[in-house]
Amino acid sequence: MKRGINHHQVGDNVEMYLLIKQAKKGIASNGKPFLTLQLSDKSGEIEAKLWGVSPEDEVAFVSSVIVHIQGEIQEFRGMRQLKIKAIRPTSGMDQVKPSDFLQSAPLDPNDMLEKITQYIFEMRNPKIQRLTRHLVKKHQEAFLETPAATKNHHEFVSGLAYHVVSMLDLAKSIAGLYPSLDKDLLYAGVILHDMGKVRELSGPIVSQYTIEGKLLGHITMMVSEIGEAAKELEIEGEEVLVLQHLVLSHHGKSEWGSPKAPLIREAEILHMIDNIDAKMNMMDRALEHVAPGDFTERIFPMENRTLYKPTFHAKPLEF
Amino acid sequence: MKRGINHHQVGDNVEMYLLIKQAKKGIASNGKPFLTLQLSDKSGEIEAKLWGVSPEDEVAFVSSVIVHIQGEIQEFRGMRQLKIKAIRPTSGMDQVKPSDFLQSAPLDPNDMLEKITQYIFEMRNPKIQRLTRHLVKKHQEAFLETPAATKNHHEFVSGLAYHVVSMLDLAKSIAGLYPSLDKDLLYAGVILHDMGKVRELSGPIVSQYTIEGKLLGHITMMVSEIGEAAKELEIEGEEVLVLQHLVLSHHGKSEWGSPKAPLIREAEILHMIDNIDAKMNMMDRALEHVAPGDFTERIFPMENRTLYKPTFHAKPLEF
Amino acid sequence: MKRGINHHQVGDNVEMYLLIKQAKKGIASNGKPFLTLQLSDKSGEIEAKLWGVSPEDEVAFVSSVIVHIQGEIQEFRGMRQLKIKAIRPTSGMDQVKPSDFLQSAPLDPNDMLEKITQYIFEMRNPKIQRLTRHLVKKHQEAFLETPAATKNHHEFVSGLAYHVVSMLDLAKSIAGLYPSLDKDLLYAGVILHDMGKVRELSGPIVSQYTIEGKLLGHITMMVSEIGEAAKELEIEGEEVLVLQHLVLSHHGKSEWGSPKAPLIREAEILHMIDNIDAKMNMMDRALEHVAPGDFTERIFPMENRTLYKPTFHAKPLEF
Amino acid sequence: MKRGINHHQVGDNVEMYLLIKQAKKGIASNGKPFLTLQLSDKSGEIEAKLWGVSPEDEVAFVSSVIVHIQGEIQEFRGMRQLKIKAIRPTSGMDQVKPSDFLQSAPLDPNDMLEKITQYIFEMRNPKIQRLTRHLVKKHQEAFLETPAATKNHHEFVSGLAYHVVSMLDLAKSIAGLYPSLDKDLLYAGVILHDMGKVRELSGPIVSQYTIEGKLLGHITMMVSEIGEAAKELEIEGEEVLVLQHLVLSHHGKSEWGSPKAPLIREAEILHMIDNIDAKMNMMDRALEHVAPGDFTERIFPMENRTLYKPTFHAKPLEF
Amino acid sequence: MKRGINHHQVGDNVEMYLLIKQAKKGIASNGKPFLTLQLSDKSGEIEAKLWGVSPEDEVAFVSSVIVHIQGEIQEFRGMRQLKIKAIRPTSGMDQVKPSDFLQSAPLDPNDMLEKITQYIFEMRNPKIQRLTRHLVKKHQEAFLETPAATKNHHEFVSGLAYHVVSMLDLAKSIAGLYPSLDKDLLYAGVILHDMGKVRELSGPIVSQYTIEGKLLGHITMMVSEIGEAAKELEIEGEEVLVLQHLVLSHHGKSEWGSPKAPLIREAEILHMIDNIDAKMNMMDRALEHVAPGDFTERIFPMENRTLYKPTFHAKPLEF
Amino acid sequence: MKRGINHHQVGDNVEMYLLIKQAKKGIASNGKPFLTLQLSDKSGEIEAKLWGVSPEDEVAFVSSVIVHIQGEIQEFRGMRQLKIKAIRPTSGMDQVKPSDFLQSAPLDPNDMLEKITQYIFEMRNPKIQRLTRHLVKKHQEAFLETPAATKNHHEFVSGLAYHVVSMLDLAKSIAGLYPSLDKDLLYAGVILHDMGKVRELSGPIVSQYTIEGKLLGHITMMVSEIGEAAKELEIEGEEVLVLQHLVLSHHGKSEWGSPKAPLIREAEILHMIDNIDAKMNMMDRALEHVAPGDFTERIFPMENRTLYKPTFHAKPLEF
Repeated sequence: MKRGINHHQVGDNVEMYLLIKQAKKGIASNGKPFLTLQLSDKSGEIEAKLWGVSPEDEVAFVSSVIVHIQGEIQEFRGMRQLKIKAIRPTSGMDQVKPSDFLQSAPLDPNDMLEKITQYIFEMRNPKIQRLTRHLVKKHQEAFLETPAATKNHHEFVSGLAYHVVSMLDLAKSIAGLYPSLDKDLLYAGVILHDMGKVRELSGPIVSQYTIEGKLLGHITMMVSEIGEAAKELEIEGEEVLVLQHLVLSHHGKSEWGSPKAPLIREAEILHMIDNIDAKMNMMDRALEHVAPGDFTERIFPMENRTLYKPTFHAKPLEF
Repeated sequence: MKRGINHHQVGDNVEMYLLIKQAKKGIASNGKPFLTLQLSDKSGEIEAKLWGVSPEDEVAFVSSVIVHIQGEIQEFRGMRQLKIKAIRPTSGMDQVKPSDFLQSAPLDPNDMLEKITQYIFEMRNPKIQRLTRHLVKKHQEAFLETPAATKNHHEFVSGLAYHVVSMLDLAKSIAGLYPSLDKDLLYAGVILHDMGKVRELSGPIVSQYTIEGKLLGHITMMVSEIGEAAKELEIEGEEVLVLQHLVLSHHGKSEWGSPKAPLIREAEILHMIDNIDAKMNMMDRALEHVAPGDFTERIFPMENRTLYKPTFHAKPLEF
Repeated sequence: MKRGINHHQVGDNVEMYLLIKQAKKGIASNGKPFLTLQLSDKSGEIEAKLWGVSPEDEVAFVSSVIVHIQGEIQEFRGMRQLKIKAIRPTSGMDQVKPSDFLQSAPLDPNDMLEKITQYIFEMRNPKIQRLTRHLVKKHQEAFLETPAATKNHHEFVSGLAYHVVSMLDLAKSIAGLYPSLDKDLLYAGVILHDMGKVRELSGPIVSQYTIEGKLLGHITMMVSEIGEAAKELEIEGEEVLVLQHLVLSHHGKSEWGSPKAPLIREAEILHMIDNIDAKMNMMDRALEHVAPGDFTERIFPMENRTLYKPTFHAKPLEF
Repeated sequence: MKRGINHHQVGDNVEMYLLIKQAKKGIASNGKPFLTLQLSDKSGEIEAKLWGVSPEDEVAFVSSVIVHIQGEIQEFRGMRQLKIKAIRPTSGMDQVKPSDFLQSAPLDPNDMLEKITQYIFEMRNPKIQRLTRHLVKKHQEAFLETPAATKNHHEFVSGLAYHVVSMLDLAKSIAGLYPSLDKDLLYAGVILHDMGKVRELSGPIVSQYTIEGKLLGHITMMVSEIGEAAKELEIEGEEVLVLQHLVLSHHGKSEWGSPKAPLIREAEILHMIDNIDAKMNMMDRALEHVAPGDFTERIFPMENRTLYKPTFHAKPLEF
Repeated sequence: MKRGINHHQVGDNVEMYLLIKQAKKGIASNGKPFLTLQLSDKSGEIEAKLWGVSPEDEVAFVSSVIVHIQGEIQEFRGMRQLKIKAIRPTSGMDQVKPSDFLQSAPLDPNDMLEKITQYIFEMRNPKIQRLTRHLVKKHQEAFLETPAATKNHHEFVSGLAYHVVSMLDLAKSIAGLYPSLDKDLLYAGVILHDMGKVRELSGPIVSQYTIEGKLLGHITMMVSEIGEAAKELEIEGEEVLVLQHLVLSHHGKSEWGSPKAPLIREAEILHMIDNIDAKMNMMDRALEHVAPGDFTERIFPMENRTLYKPTFHAKPLEF
Repeated sequence: MKRGINHHQVGDNVEMYLLIKQAKKGIASNGKPFLTLQLSDKSGEIEAKLWGVSPEDEVAFVSSVIVHIQGEIQEFRGMRQLKIKAIRPTSGMDQVKPSDFLQSAPLDPNDMLEKITQYIFEMRNPKIQRLTRHLVKKHQEAFLETPAATKNHHEFVSGLAYHVVSMLDLAKSIAGLYPSLDKDLLYAGVILHDMGKVRELSGPIVSQYTIEGKLLGHITMMVSEIGEAAKELEIEGEEVLVLQHLVLSHHGKSEWGSPKAPLIREAEILHMIDNIDAKMNMMDRALEHVAPGDFTERIFPMENRTLYKPTFHAKPLEF
C-alpha cells in the first residue's frame, strides 16, 4: 500500500482510497445538508466534510463503504482535516476490500487458526476436544476476524483470535507450573470464553452491539451454544456442564457480568489469564508512544489510572 | 390426618407417622453412635435422638424416609423433644407418602395448573403462547410440586406454582391499569421466570441445590431451555429473544444475579411483580404469629428488618 | 388553542402567545447585552434570541412571563429557532394564563380531586380518614397543580395529583389480591406520601426547590404536618405515628432519603407502588417516540439504562 | 453506700440491695421454671439464678425492680455468680431508688443544667435563645437523666446531658478559633441535636427503643418539636428552619440517618463536634483498663478497630 | 503594589507586571501559532491571547515567568480578557519575584515558624521533641512556602504552614478539654502529618505532583523520613514507631490513602483536627462571596454539596 | 520421626514429643485452674486438658514449648482428645526443635535460596541487582523460615520463600510471553514484595502480628528499608523509587492496603502474579481432600466461595 493517511502533512495533495467508518448528516447554515465523514486506513483516521449532498449521496456514502478521494490536507482548529475535491464510491473493479483499511492483529488469521487447532489436538479428554473443535469450526470465519471488544482492548480486526492465542500460551506456561490444573479444560475455556462475541458484535468493520448482544450478552449466548452443540454431538457427562460454567464465570463476579463466580479451579485461573492478557494489551498500547519519564493518558478500564514509563527504560527493552 | 405433632403437649404419649427431614450422626460420650433426627409432618417439626444405632440403622433412617414412631413428648432446655420408644421405617403397606408430611401451598396443584392454562389461553401472540405452553407441559410435574426457594419465601411444596399464580393475578391487575404493557409478554415472563428451579433444586422434599444449579443457576438454564424449545417448535422471531431477556433480567441487577438489567418495559415490571409477591409472602408469615404492638423477628432477606404490627390491627383485618 | 409552536415548520411566519420558561443574559461580540429565551406552549418548546436589550427589557422578559410574539421559524445548526420580529409582554387584557402554556396531566384536576375524595370516603378508620381529609383540604389548591418532581417523572402541571390517583388505583388492585393489607393505611399513605412537595417545590410553572425544600425536604416537612394536624384535630392513637412512619419510610432506604426503612407491611407496599408508578411514567415517555426495533436515550434515574422496543410491538398495543 | 457488688470476692457472703436489669425465664431439666437475673449496682453487674419460681415470683422479679438479697459469690465456668439464699422485692420503706444502682455521669445533673443555662444566656439572637430555652425547660427532667445511647457511647444515667456539656465546651473553643462560626447556632445545635432521645429511649434504667423511637427516630421527632415550639412561641424567621436543619443533618449523611447532609457551616461543625466527643468517650473507656503495650478489645462502632496504648504512656498522663 | 488586575474595569488601559501561571499553544485559523496565557497577581487572574508567536516566544513565555505588559481590558463572551499591546519577559532588573504574584497565607511565614517553634518548645517528651525539631529544621524553607494541596483547601503559598498553625491551636484547645490526650504526640503529629508535601508537590508557584509524589505519596515518604531521622539522631523507643503511625494513619481509612486506620487515641484525633481545619477553610472561602439567602457553588471535596448562607447572617458575624 | 499424632486411633496409648501451639487457662467447676493445650507435630494437631495445674505449670507449659507426653487417645463429643497421663517440658538433652513439629514448605530452604540467588544473578540492571541482593542477605535467615501469612495461604514454615520461588517461575514464563516487561524489575519486585513480613510477623512457630506490624504493616516497612538500603549502598536513580513503588502497590488498591495503585507495567503484573500463586495455593489445599463430585468448605479469602471438584477428575490429574 502507498503512504497511509496518517503520514501526510498539512498542505499535501492526496489521491487515495479510504474507508468510511462513520457518516453523519448535518444541516449547513445555508439550509443545505452536508455529511461529516470519518475516513480511515491502516495508518489512522481523518475527518472530512462533504458539502451540499444530494439524497443519492446520502445513500452512497455510508459507513463501511470504501471511497476514492482527491483532496488536500488542511488544518482546522488545530486538527487535520481533509478538504474533498473529488469523491466516488468504489466498485468491484477497484479491487479494494474493507479489511485493507482496518487495523488488525499482528498475526495472520490462518497462522492463528493453526495454532488453536494444535492446542485442540493436544487435548486428551475426547468430549472436551470434540466440543471445542465443533464450535471453532461452526464459527470459524467470524471467529478469525471479530475484534475482542468494541473498545478497551484488542479492538481490531482478528482481535479475538489474537487474544485467544496469547491466552493459550499463557495457559500452557501456567499449567506447566501448577500440575493440578487440567490443561484440557483450561485450553477449551480459553478458546470458547469470548466466542459469543461473534454474535454479540456486529462484525469487524464498524463494530457495534447487536440487539441480542444487548439483551442477552455473549456469555449467556455461548453457554446456550455449548449445550446445543453437546446435544448435536450426543455428548453427555459433566464436561459439558463444567465448560458452560467456565464460560459463564469468566468475568469473575456478578457485578462484572458473571452470574456465577468461578467454582472450579480452572475457571478461576481462566478469569485471571483473561485479565492478564487484556491488561497487557491495554498497557502496551498506552505506553507505546510515551517517552521515558512521562505518564500515559488516563486508562478508563484500569480504574482511570495513568501509567508511568521509568526513565531507565530509555531504550525500549526488546520492543 | 390425626392430630399433628405440633398440637401435642409435653407429657403426651404419641404413636404416629413422621417424615425424617434430616438425620445427623454423632458419637455419644460412651463412644457409641447416635442419630439426631429432625422429624416433621404438616403441622410442624420436632427433634428426636436415636441412641446406640447400628450400621443398618444409619442406612435405614435417612432424610426423606417416613417412620412410624411410638414415644413421649418431653422438654429439654426449654425445647420440645420426642423421646423415642419404638421406631420403624415404613413400607408400601403403610400407605403414606412424603407429600402428606410437608407444608404445601394453600391451593391444589390441579387448580393452579388450570389457572395457569387459562392465562396461556388468553395470550394473543401465537409464538409466545406456543413456547409457554410447550415449556409448562415439558416440566409440568416438577413445576407443580417444586418450592419457589430453599428458604426466604414460598419454601413449601408447590411453592413455585403458587408464587406464579399470585404473580399472574398481580400482572393482570397492573396491566389493566397501564395499557402500554404487553399482557402476553408479562404472563409468559411470569410463568417462565423461575421455571429453571425445577432443575436448580433437588425436589420438593429436602430441597437443596443441584450441581448444575450451583454451577449455572436457574436463570441461565431457563434461557437455554427457551432457545431449545424455540428450535424444537421451529419458532423464529424476536419473541424468543425477548422472552429469554425477560427471564435473564428478572433479578433486576447484576449484583442480584441477572447479567443484564431489564431493558424491556415488561421485564422491569416482571422484576417488580416478583418482588412484591415474594415480600408479601415473607411479611405475612413473619407477622402471622405476632401480637399487635409487637415486632417480628429480624427478616434476613428484607435487609434484616424487624416489622411492627400496629395496635389498631388488634383484630386481624380479613385474615 | 391555535396550532402549537411544535407544529410549525421552518419558514413559517407566526404570531402567537408563548411562555418564557427561562431567560439568560449574554454579551454579544459587539459588547451589547442580549437574552436567550426558552419559550414554550403545551405543544413544546423553541429557543429565541432577543438582541440589543435595554435594562427595562431585562426586567420585563423574565421566566414565567407570557409574551406575544411575531416572528419566523428558522434553522440554526440543525435546530429550529424563532427569529423575533416583534415581542411584548402580555397584560390582563390578553386573557392568557401560564397554565395554558404548560404540559399538564391528562386528567382534569377536579376529576382527580373527586377520585381522591372517593378513596377517602371509603376509609373505615375514622382517625385515618379525618387526618387525610384535613390535609388534602389544607393543601388542596397547590396539591392539584404541583408537579410530582422537577424532573425524572410526572414533572408537569398536576403531576403530583396524577401520580397519586394512579397509585390509588394500583393500591386498590394490590390490596384486593393480598387481604392482609390495611386499605385505609395504604390509601392514606398514597395520598400523603409526596404532599410535602407543595412546600418543597416552588410551584407549577418554573419548578425549583425552595430553601426549606433543600434544608428539610418534603418527607420531613410532611411528617411534621401530620403531627400538627393530629394536634389540631385532637386525634390521638397509634394511627398518627404509623401514618408519619409511612411518609417517612416511603423512599425505602436511608441512602434514598428515608431515615427509617419501612417497618410496617403497608409502608413496604407503599414504597413499591410509588416505584412502579414512577417507573411506568418514565418508561412510557421514553418509549413513546421510539420506533419498534430501536432503543431509547439513556434514562438517568433508571441506572442510565436504555430501553428497547421490540419489533413485534410494531403496532402500538393499545396506546 | 457499702461495698459494691464488683468489689466482692468469690467465697464472700453478701447481704445487699441490687437492681434487676434483666429477668429471663427458663425451664430447668426437672421441668420447673427458673429466672436468670442480671443484677447491678454502681460498681458493676453479676448474674444469679432463682430456681423453682412461682407465677407470683415471675411478676415480682422483673427488670427495674430493686431487690434485697442474701447470698454467696461463687464461680461458674470462670464467671462470678451470685448464689441466692434469700431474696425479696423492696418497698418504699427500704428507701432505695433505681438511680442509686446505675452508673452515671461524673458531673451532677444540676451543675450540668446550670452550665447549659449559662450557654443559653450567652446567646445574642433572641429567637434562637428563646427556642432553646423553651425546649430545655419542656424536657428538663428527662433531658438530665437520659443516657446518650443504649450502647456505644455515654450509655449511662445523665449521659445525654454530659455529652451536651462536653460538646458545648468544644464548640466554644472551636468557635473561638474560627470567627466565621455563629456561636448561637452552634450552641443551640449542640443542646438540641440529641434531645429527641428523651422520647426515643424508654428511660434511664433499662434503656430501650420506644415504638415511636423505632418508627420515627429521635432526629425526626426533634425537628417536629422545634417547629411546634416555634408556633407556640410565635417565633418566625429562618432561625427556626436553620435549627431544624442542624438537628436533621447532624448525623452527616443519609446512610447514617440524616436525610439531608449539612448545608450550613455550623451544621457541618456540629456533626464533627458530636463525632469527636463520642469517639473520645469510646476511646477513653476502652483504653482505661488496658496496660501500656497492650491493645483494647475490638470497638464495634469504630469500624471494629482495636486501639493500642503506647508503652511510653506507662504512667497515665493526667488521668 | 499598585492596583491589582482584578480591580480593573473593562476599557481600562493597563501597564503592569503579571505572572504566567499557564501557557498553552494553539494554531489559529490562519495556520499561525498563538499562546493562550493565564496571567495572575495577588488580586486574581485574567486570560490573554498572544498572536503570531515565534519559536523564541514559545520558549520565553512559559509558566512561572513574570512579564511586563501593556494592554487593555476587554470583554469576550461575557468574560474579561486582556488585549496585549506590548509584552516582555522580566529580568533581574525589574526586581519582581513570583511570590509577589501569588495568593498567600494571611500570616507571615516567620510568625508561623515562631509559633510552631513555641509548640515544639512546650513538648515534654525529649524524643518526640528532638525528632520534630530536626525535621522542621531539615525542611524549613520549603515547609514555610509550600501550599497544603494543589486544590481543595489551603492551595496558596505557605498554605501548609498556615494549616499546621491552625491545627496546632485546635489541638491545644481540644487537648485542654480531654486530659487523656498526650499533647506532645498530638502537636508532633500535627506538625509532621503533611510535611511530606514538600516533596510531593513541585513548589509554591505552579504546584503539581512530582514523580515520587505520584508513585509513593507524601504519607509514605514522611514515614520513611521519620525513620531515617531517628537513626540519624540515634533515637530509639516506641515514640518513633508511634509518630510514624500518626502520619501513616492521618487520612483515617485505607480508601482515603492511609494503609492503616488510626490505632492510637491521638492518631484518631489528629485525623479529626485535620478534617475540621480543611473543611473550615473550604467552607469559609466558598461562603465568602455569597450573599445571605444564597447557596454556594457545589464544593467537590465535600461530596459536591452546596452550602447555604442564612438570611439572618445578613451582617457578617465577625468576619 | 515415628508415627505422627494424626495417624493414631482412638484407644491408642502414645508416648511422644509434641509442640504446644497454644495454652489457655481455665477454672474448673471445683475452682481449680486447668490448661487447654493445642498440641501439634508435622502430621496434625490434637487437644488435651491438663487438670489442676500449679503456678509453676502455668509458666512451664506455654506456647512454643515442646513437651514429652504419655497418654491415651480418647473421644469427646465426636472429637479426638489426648488424655494426659504424664507430661514434662523438654530440655536440650531431648534433641528436639520446634521446626520438627511444624508443617513446612515442600522445598528445602537452601534449595530455595539458591534458586532466588540464581534469579538475582540473571539481572542486568546493576542497581536493581545490588539492592535486591543486599536485602536478601540482610534478612536471609528470617526470610527463609517465615510463613507468607498467619492464615489464608502459605501459612507454614518457609512459606514466604516458597511463595517467592513459585512467583519467580511464574514471572519468568509470563515475561517470556510479553517482551515489553522488564524482567529485572519483575524479579526484584517478586523477591522484595512481602519481605517486610519478617518484621510484621513474630516468627515461624506461633506466627502473630508484631506491634510495628499492626501500626505500620509490612508494605510501609519494606518501602522504608529499600530507601535505607539505597542510602547505605549509595545507589541513586529512579530504580530505587520504582522498586519502592512496586512493593507499595502490590496489593493493587487502597482498599486492599496499597495507598498507591500500580502505575508501572511491572507493578500491575506483580500484583497479578501474587494473586495467582496465592489463589492456587488456597485452591489446591482446599481441593486436596475433596472427592470428585463434592464441594470444598467455604474459602473465606476467596469471597467465601465453595469450590467443586468435577467427577471426571476422578483420578487426580498429575498430583
